[in-house]
Amino acid sequence: MQRRLLTLRYEGTHYHGWQVQENAVTVQETLQNAIESLTGVRSGVIGCSRTDAGVHAEAFCCTFDSESTLSDYTVVRGLNAYLPQDIAVYGCRVVPPTFHPRYDALGKRYTYRVWNSAVRHPFWANRTAMISGHLPEERLDQAAQAYLGTHDFAAFCAAGSSVEDTVRTVTRAEVRREGDLVTFTVEANGFLYNMVRIMAGTLLEMGMGKRAYDDIPRILTSENRAEAGRTAPAAGLTLERVFYPPPYDTL
Amino acid sequence: MQRRLLTLRYEGTHYHGWQVQENAVTVQETLQNAIESLTGVRSGVIGCSRTDAGVHAEAFCCTFDSESTLSDYTVVRGLNAYLPQDIAVYGCRVVPPTFHPRYDALGKRYTYRVWNSAVRHPFWANRTAMISGHLPEERLDQAAQAYLGTHDFAAFCAAGSSVEDTVRTVTRAEVRREGDLVTFTVEANGFLYNMVRIMAGTLLEMGMGKRAYDDIPRILTSENRAEAGRTAPAAGLTLERVFYPPPYDTL
Repeated sequence: MQRRLLTLRYEGTHYHGWQVQENAVTVQETLQNAIESLTGVRSGVIGCSRTDAGVHAEAFCCTFDSESTLSDYTVVRGLNAYLPQDIAVYGCRVVPPTFHPRYDALGKRYTYRVWNSAVRHPFWANRTAMISGHLPEERLDQAAQAYLGTHDFAAFCAAGSSVEDTVRTVTRAEVRREGDLVTFTVEANGFLYNMVRIMAGTLLEMGMGKRAYDDIPRILTSENRAEAGRTAPAAGLTLERVFYPPPYDTL
Repeated sequence: MQRRLLTLRYEGTHYHGWQVQENAVTVQETLQNAIESLTGVRSGVIGCSRTDAGVHAEAFCCTFDSESTLSDYTVVRGLNAYLPQDIAVYGCRVVPPTFHPRYDALGKRYTYRVWNSAVRHPFWANRTAMISGHLPEERLDQAAQAYLGTHDFAAFCAAGSSVEDTVRTVTRAEVRREGDLVTFTVEANGFLYNMVRIMAGTLLEMGMGKRAYDDIPRILTSENRAEAGRTAPAAGLTLERVFYPPPYDTL
């Protein structure tokens, strides 16, 4: 029995998120089906996080256990032959049987993208939120610096979440513009449920003139979900990278 | 009656090209439907070129005539409300009734994109051709220089085309790499049917070791379609820009 760590990209538009659920197509189930087709054996897949419906991944990490003696390269090519166009595996390596893609992650990087124009962009429509009014990206970048550091992010966690420890350390928070595309990038040692989308939604309310640019410290202190901004739409969110200790880092 | 020049983007994957045809959904027909919904009157739309099925556009130009007094801005917003997600109008201006989007074009720019990896990229799958073996982009860039200048491009025109004058002037031909994405960019005063896809297909055969890097002058001289490479897949092709004389240039 060997445990393998897979790295994959997906366009989440047509999936009800990562995790298997009844009566809905998910990335996890689609991948498990491909593994069964390739190896002949049903194998559970453990993911690095539970992305929501419509969220994308540039480098999602997950493990599966198998008796298969196929080479890593054959696993990559074989899985892609069984997977639909909007999911692609591009990394595969053997890891110790104790390796866990969620618990062993040191942190993650997410991006939240906004198509900032009065006219949608066909190529970006599925992968961005759209806002017509011009966003002042430099002021938003300055505002986002308040996310940096170790804070209790309870105010930036979806109501009803059962997690007990809501303290996280954010090590990168920046807003950049390339033409009409405005991107919020955030890295942390861990993320609460909907945390990035609420962080993004809060910044977007600043950019639309609905909230003061210096509001983040007050929201953090409140530890109250109602003080933060709306949860920004799923389409704008992409899991960009999962950080593991060497030698398991995948990029 | 006013003639208006529209600029639009589209993802051509789900269309049978630009031009109206029976029993197939085309961009032209979809746009004509949107104009009729907006203005209440059916109006023919004249395009700058006839893109093939599966080809994309970053800046397709077309005109329509209408008695409508709607502002240019309202036309843009209104058409986008009626158009599907994969087509978006972003420019509208009044032009003289003598303006013709094809005959008045000074030239066009196309890109042909290749996803150069053994693993497909979900975000680029519809907009690229895919080639596993590493393409030597610098050698291809050098080879592509032979396209520059005024030549008879008969060898780079789809067999069966009825055009008489096959002389065109190419003013830009380059190959660049960004990560796994290799892009061939070409500008000319006009293009024959399938010309860019045959030019790209010829370069790709060089990159795959099936053809000498200095073969283009020989193919041009032959004026024989059979001497050039295969027509590269439609998905990789994007019409990037149409050049018009001032003041009609749209970008």
